[in-house]
Amino acid sequence: MFSEKPLPDAIDLSHHLSKVAVARQVSPLKGLQKYMDKPGLISLAGGMPNPSYFPFHSLGAEVLVEDQFPLNPSQSSSGLSWFWKLFGSKQVERTTAVSVPKFANKPGEIDLATALQYSMAKGLKPLQDFINDFVGNVYQPGYANYTTIVHAGNTDGVNKSIMTLCNPGEGVLVSEWTYPSTMATMKPLGIRPVPVGMDGQGMSAVALDKLLSEWDVEARGGMPRPHVIYTVPVGQNPTGATMGAQRKKEIYAIAVKYDIIIIEDDPYYFLQQGEYVPKGERKEEEVKTHKDEEKHFIASLAPSFLKFDYQGRVVRLETFSKTVAPGSRLGFFTCNAVFAERFERQGETSTQAPCGFGQSMVASLLLQWQYSGYIRWLRALRLQYKQRRDFFIDCFDDEFNMRRSIAVSGAHQGAVVYEGSLKPLRGEKFAASGKTLFSFVPPTSGMFVWIKLHFDEHSEVSTLGMKELEMKLWTALAEEGILFGPGNMFSSANLTDDYEGPGHFRISFSNADFDELKRAVEVFQHVTRKFFKDL
Amino acid sequence: MFSEKPLPDAIDLSHHLSKVAVARQVSPLKGLQKYMDKPGLISLAGGMPNPSYFPFHSLGAEVLVEDQFPLNPSQSSSGLSWFWKLFGSKQVERTTAVSVPKFANKPGEIDLATALQYSMAKGLKPLQDFINDFVGNVYQPGYANYTTIVHAGNTDGVNKSIMTLCNPGEGVLVSEWTYPSTMATMKPLGIRPVPVGMDGQGMSAVALDKLLSEWDVEARGGMPRPHVIYTVPVGQNPTGATMGAQRKKEIYAIAVKYDIIIIEDDPYYFLQQGEYVPKGERKEEEVKTHKDEEKHFIASLAPSFLKFDYQGRVVRLETFSKTVAPGSRLGFFTCNAVFAERFERQGETSTQAPCGFGQSMVASLLLQWQYSGYIRWLRALRLQYKQRRDFFIDCFDDEFNMRRSIAVSGAHQGAVVYEGSLKPLRGEKFAASGKTLFSFVPPTSGMFVWIKLHFDEHSEVSTLGMKELEMKLWTALAEEGILFGPGNMFSSANLTDDYEGPGHFRISFSNADFDELKRAVEVFQHVTRKFFKDL
Repeated sequence: MFSEKPLPDAIDLSHHLSKVAVARQVSPLKGLQKYMDKPGLISLAGGMPNPSYFPFHSLGAEVLVEDQFPLNPSQSSSGLSWFWKLFGSKQVERTTAVSVPKFANKPGEIDLATALQYSMAKGLKPLQDFINDFVGNVYQPGYANYTTIVHAGNTDGVNKSIMTLCNPGEGVLVSEWTYPSTMATMKPLGIRPVPVGMDGQGMSAVALDKLLSEWDVEARGGMPRPHVIYTVPVGQNPTGATMGAQRKKEIYAIAVKYDIIIIEDDPYYFLQQGEYVPKGERKEEEVKTHKDEEKHFIASLAPSFLKFDYQGRVVRLETFSKTVAPGSRLGFFTCNAVFAERFERQGETSTQAPCGFGQSMVASLLLQWQYSGYIRWLRALRLQYKQRRDFFIDCFDDEFNMRRSIAVSGAHQGAVVYEGSLKPLRGEKFAASGKTLFSFVPPTSGMFVWIKLHFDEHSEVSTLGMKELEMKLWTALAEEGILFGPGNMFSSANLTDDYEGPGHFRISFSNADFDELKRAVEVFQHVTRKFFKDL
Repeated sequence: MFSEKPLPDAIDLSHHLSKVAVARQVSPLKGLQKYMDKPGLISLAGGMPNPSYFPFHSLGAEVLVEDQFPLNPSQSSSGLSWFWKLFGSKQVERTTAVSVPKFANKPGEIDLATALQYSMAKGLKPLQDFINDFVGNVYQPGYANYTTIVHAGNTDGVNKSIMTLCNPGEGVLVSEWTYPSTMATMKPLGIRPVPVGMDGQGMSAVALDKLLSEWDVEARGGMPRPHVIYTVPVGQNPTGATMGAQRKKEIYAIAVKYDIIIIEDDPYYFLQQGEYVPKGERKEEEVKTHKDEEKHFIASLAPSFLKFDYQGRVVRLETFSKTVAPGSRLGFFTCNAVFAERFERQGETSTQAPCGFGQSMVASLLLQWQYSGYIRWLRALRLQYKQRRDFFIDCFDDEFNMRRSIAVSGAHQGAVVYEGSLKPLRGEKFAASGKTLFSFVPPTSGMFVWIKLHFDEHSEVSTLGMKELEMKLWTALAEEGILFGPGNMFSSANLTDDYEGPGHFRISFSNADFDELKRAVEVFQHVTRKFFKDL
């Protein structure tokens, strides 16, 4: 027998609620709930249609088996080269059937009469239960009374978090480069992003502490010291950076010190691919057998902020967009019960419960797979993304001279940086050949490579400025049929025309077919060669 | 040949946009769109998973046939009494199969690779097209360039409308009694409901014009004259009132005069049941055959505000919640293009596109049925609700002495009012027998009977007050297992404890089985008898 210290409950953090969140109604059911659980109750209170009028008799799907994708690419027996096997759309999909009847055959079963009816903003009970267990097993929150509640995807989750926590005139701490949609959520509400310096692990704890300790309300135009951090800690959007456990502990300690709420927007959590190893040095990975595969897998992932959250000051946003499908518009909060109750109230006057078709299909899938099956799916999924990332970065090595170095300062500090320069063409004397035109740190998670563009010596840098130069290169690529994400969209500072930092592109390797990824890097090579021809 | 005057385009109403709506970003795609339609484009710009990672191979459903329900109850051949046939849940459901493959087999077909991917907040193209045609055919807007755009159900639609049109400190014109969820949406945002008097058709045009013409900013505590009306014009929630064409024209004219936007929240549009005829006088309805059944049906419905909207100042909110299922969380706006564009931007930072499972299933159903099939479904649906309403109101006649009269003033002005009093029990000398204890106007649309409670002579009226008396009766019913909607929840004025008007219940006949409806009225009779025993 061993004794484990029981986890504390969340502390009272209700002073973080926005005026809007505080002003939301109490539950209309408060005080009436006791009557609603009466057996034999006849409720003529709500405006619900009779389920016989739902023109769906049953809903069904052929869902993939949990082991559709291998845990090791060599497990595939085809003679094709490994990356061609990854053309998922052409793969044979092995399936199993799930179905949802209009009326449940046994208690607790998902049925359309419930899923397609008006329901509590909390969502379907079997889904709630699955999510709650999942959070406990995988993230292991540092306090006992955490609460999960569904939302309609992380975009909805961010919106609800900002509306629940922030008042107009306040600022939210974000990374220098961050997800534009979150800024687009805040700005119309009069809430401003406050940039925090980054390094190779994303938001810098040192920069954060400095910024907060030196906060000067007057110099900030009256903006109070922010009480909310927004962060994408794994496979950061757009830089691809991932915060390790130590960094998260440091940032959490700062959050405690300055009484800050952390919004952890974590869509890429299960796309943790590990370090990039150049093609020549890469060994065929062996899948080691562990006594407890699931626990080993979970332990191999960077922990969530929840793990260090002993006070309940993390609002974790998770979504099925990357692990099931974006069109699910389904995800969930994990947070303290006070915030969860406000999210539920907010849901009642906006999204209500997420779509019943989506909830019942995602829940059916998860109940079909069970926890172990879902973990099996996630393990293979991260390998798929690893192979995509490896293939995509390999393409740069094919097209450019890539040089490795360790960054000693700046946004990439401590990380292995790959610097790209042009290969001289046969017989060509080309001054730019040796110059670094771009550089990146291969991401260890997520969907994006964040390329820094070294425009410093471009002939037009003094006349056009960095921002316009970036869009000029972006346009040249677009005209050749290649779309990247323009870096300036991701800046949390207002990049003015005299901005002097580097240009950037966010390039996604998550969706395109492999031949398209290859083609994109080829075009990038041709276009940059032309773009820098005067160097 | 005849010449029809071409419809005008919407006028510029952009000055109605709220600060939040104006501050929303321009479309991130603006200016880049021309590159996105290039054939052979390789986009590495978005963060989209490859569809091979969606664990759904196909989605399918058994959907009801469009003529599942009869157009005439006598068409059923069963020997059971007519209302027992209506136990929908026990009816045999006749179905046809729809399915959605992962990849389309032909262009324009709905597929999961599209429906479950990130997509524009506008929604699936085949659904957009259906909706657009539907609005043109059914509502016939009075201006040419109306725009439709999907939302996640009318609750979401109301939220987006309020956020797009109203600033904190403003008021929104609503009926005296109105939908609580809309008030719960406004109040936290600092937007206040401004009650407008009602009569038998809902919001009174006379009261509205008077209120606006006499608006005194100072007397209103600085609130500017409202520029937005919120109304549920058909089967009004909670009163069940329906505005005819003439009333809508009058209100529209006032909206033009005072430059007002009308939010038409119209979930019950297709539940137009016609006048209630008491059981003894009711004739078995004959279904007349018309040359054009569809056009005849549409012409038989109270028109939408859109029909009179020649300037584009109506924001119509429609939902599939009542015609398909609430869990669809799917509906659409019809409005001018400027507002629609702002709704789309707002969608991008909140709901995004509605759930892809829901969109593809509802779209598949509608494409299976086609326009004519959907109209057939709607025609039978309103008959289902008519039978429910008739049955429910008949129950009152069984339990109480019901007296008819025409109301000459007040909220029921011009309508046939049914007044209920107790039947004397055998051998009982009961003073309350002859007194009117409650009254209602049978609704011609929607889901609700709005019962006025005549507490005036209740022994406790002076000590408890109307509001508390209402909750006392509500609680007495709840303790007997019957839940009604407490009337005070629907008041747009703040009902204080010294409120002297009548009490109310909103009673829904939309969901419960017929024996439950009957039982509810029986319990209501027993409980009111006890409640008024001192009279």
